[in-house]
Amino acid sequence: MDRSKYDNSSEIVLDHGSGAQLSHELVSLIVETLGDVYLGEMEDSAMLPIEGGRIAMTTDSFVVDPPFFGNGDIGKIAVCGTVNDLAVVGSKPLYLTLGMILETGLPMERLVRVLTSIRETAREAGVRIVCGDTKVVRKGEADRIYLNTAGVGVFEREPLRMGRVRPGDRVILSGPIGNHTVHLLSIREGLGFEQRVLSDCAPLNGLLETVFGRVEEGMVRSVRDVTRGGLAAVLHEYADALGHTVRVDQETLPIQPETAMAMDMLGIDPIHTANEGCLCLFVAPAAEERVLAALRSHRYGNRAVTIGEVTGRADPLVLLRDRAGRESVLEELRGAELPRLC
Amino acid sequence: MDRSKYDNSSEIVLDHGSGAQLSHELVSLIVETLGDVYLGEMEDSAMLPIEGGRIAMTTDSFVVDPPFFGNGDIGKIAVCGTVNDLAVVGSKPLYLTLGMILETGLPMERLVRVLTSIRETAREAGVRIVCGDTKVVRKGEADRIYLNTAGVGVFEREPLRMGRVRPGDRVILSGPIGNHTVHLLSIREGLGFEQRVLSDCAPLNGLLETVFGRVEEGMVRSVRDVTRGGLAAVLHEYADALGHTVRVDQETLPIQPETAMAMDMLGIDPIHTANEGCLCLFVAPAAEERVLAALRSHRYGNRAVTIGEVTGRADPLVLLRDRAGRESVLEELRGAELPRLC
Repeated sequence: MDRSKYDNSSEIVLDHGSGAQLSHELVSLIVETLGDVYLGEMEDSAMLPIEGGRIAMTTDSFVVDPPFFGNGDIGKIAVCGTVNDLAVVGSKPLYLTLGMILETGLPMERLVRVLTSIRETAREAGVRIVCGDTKVVRKGEADRIYLNTAGVGVFEREPLRMGRVRPGDRVILSGPIGNHTVHLLSIREGLGFEQRVLSDCAPLNGLLETVFGRVEEGMVRSVRDVTRGGLAAVLHEYADALGHTVRVDQETLPIQPETAMAMDMLGIDPIHTANEGCLCLFVAPAAEERVLAALRSHRYGNRAVTIGEVTGRADPLVLLRDRAGRESVLEELRGAELPRLC
Repeated sequence: MDRSKYDNSSEIVLDHGSGAQLSHELVSLIVETLGDVYLGEMEDSAMLPIEGGRIAMTTDSFVVDPPFFGNGDIGKIAVCGTVNDLAVVGSKPLYLTLGMILETGLPMERLVRVLTSIRETAREAGVRIVCGDTKVVRKGEADRIYLNTAGVGVFEREPLRMGRVRPGDRVILSGPIGNHTVHLLSIREGLGFEQRVLSDCAPLNGLLETVFGRVEEGMVRSVRDVTRGGLAAVLHEYADALGHTVRVDQETLPIQPETAMAMDMLGIDPIHTANEGCLCLFVAPAAEERVLAALRSHRYGNRAVTIGEVTGRADPLVLLRDRAGRESVLEELRGAELPRLC
C-alpha cells in the first residue's frame, strides 16, 4: 500500500472503522507496520500450530494516561502486561491478539508509533501478534487510544500456582517498586521527576526463563507481576489464598531515592502503586540464593532482593517489620484513586 | 460475597479499577454473575486443557451504541461476535476472554445485565469465559461500556479457507440482512421500527455444526459472518482474494419489508450494513440443496437462500443482476458513516 497517504496531517476518522475501503487501508498500515511480528491470515480467525496438553490464556485492557511517556507507550505496556501474565504461571508466551479502540482525531503518526512499540516489544519477548480488531469512536468517546491484548502460552513445565507456596518460603522482588507510577504521575501532574525516574515496563519472560534454568522444578513455587494495586495487593492475595501471614522487612524494599521523594510529595506509599516490570517470586528457602543470583545476572533483575517470607502463623495478614523489629499490619486499601496507570 | 451491597443506587466508581478491595468486590460480583460459565482460576492466566495440533484465535472489541437494545445488549454481541469468528473458519469455539472498560457512573444493575447476557449466550454457544480484566475510566473517557472478547477454538476438521473457493461455487446467505442495523439505528434516531425489526444477533456455531453434519468435508468451502461493512464487504473480500467475479441476483437478497422501508427512509443500502447473526457460505454446487436444507432446519437459518455464485470470469468484481438480467458493478464504499453498530 501507499504509505505516503499517511503524511503528518493524517488522523483517524470515523470511516476508518466502517469495514469499507478506509478500514482496509488502515488494516494494511497496521499489518505493514507490525512486519514479521504479525502472523495473522486474512481470515476471521488466525489458525495456529500448538502442542497439546495445556495452554495458558489471559487478557488485559489498557487505558494508560498518558498513552505516550518518556521511555515507552501504551503499546509496549500492552505487550509486556500480557506476556508477563502468561510467564508468571510458568507458561511460554506464544500468541497475542490486539484489539484497538481509537478516538477520532488520533494522529496517524501516533498510531504508527504505538504499533512500532508493539512490534519491537513482541520481538524482544518472542511472541507473535496473530489477529487484531480496530474500532473507531467519536471524539470524547475514548481518550485517544485504548488497547486490549489477549494471549496464549504453552507449558513446558508444571504450571506455577499459589497453592504450592509453603510456610518458610522466601518472598523475592525482581526490582524496585513505584517507578512506573512516579514516571506517569510526574508527566500527568508536571512534577518534574520524569527524567530521573523511568517506567520499569519490560517483558519478563526471558528473566523468568533464566531463573527456571538455574533451579530444580518446584523450587520457584509461584510468581506474580506486581501491577495494579502494587506489592500490597500481591501480598494480600497470597496471605488470603494461603491463610498464612506474610511478613516483609520494610527496609529491604527496593525504592529509588527520587521515587521515594516523589511519593512522599504525593502522599502515596510505593507499596500500593502500579508497576509494569517487577516480579514478586515465592521461592523455597534452599533455592533463595540461586534465584537471586539468576535474577541479578539479567538486566531486568539486577536489583533483585529478598523482602520477606511466608510465616507459619495461620492468620491471613501482611505484616511489615521495621528496622527496630516492630511489626505493623499492612491494611488493604479499599480504593487507590490513582486510575489509568496501566 | 454480599450481593446486597449492589442495590439499585450502586454504580461504577473509579476505585473499582484500583486493584484494591473494591476491585476484588467487583471481580466477585462478575464471577458470581457468570456462574458455571466462568472457568478461570485466581491466577494471572487461566490454565486450560487442549488437544494439540492447531487452534483458532480471534479478537473483537465492541463499542455498540446503544449498548442495551430491544432483544439484546453488548454482552450478547460480544460473545456472538467472537464465537462466530471462530466457527466460520471451521473450529469449535471453546474459550473466551473478557476485557471490560467501564465508564464511571455506569449503574451496577446495567453491568449485571451485560454479564447475565454473556452467561446465557456463552451457555447456548457451549463456550467458557476463562479470564477477564476490568478497567474503569472517568466520565467522558468512554461511552458507558466497551467490551473485548478474544477466543480460542480447536479443529475437529480441516480449517475452512477462502483459497478453497472455486468458480461455480454457490453463495448462500443464512438469513435476512440489515435487521441489526435498522434495530439499533431506530433506537438511536427514534425512527419507531425497533419493535418490528429485531437484531439478528445469535451464536451460529450450532447452525454451522448442523450444516457440517449433513455434507461431506470440503463441500462447504469457506464461510464468513456478515458483520461490519455488510454483505458488500464480504463479497468484495472474496472477489479480491479469488481474483474472480462474484455475481449476486439482487432480488434473491433476503430483506424484511420493514427493514427495506427503514433503509429507504435513511438512504442506506442494506447490502452495506452490519449484521450480527448472518452467515455467507461458499458451497460446492453438488451440496447446495443439502446445505440449504440443513440451514433451514435450524432456527437461525430458516430463511436461508442462495443469492449468487462465483463466476469463471477472472476479474475481481462484484456484479449485481436485476430481475431483467441487467448487471451492474457493486462499488466498494470508501467509508460508511454508520459507526458503532458492533
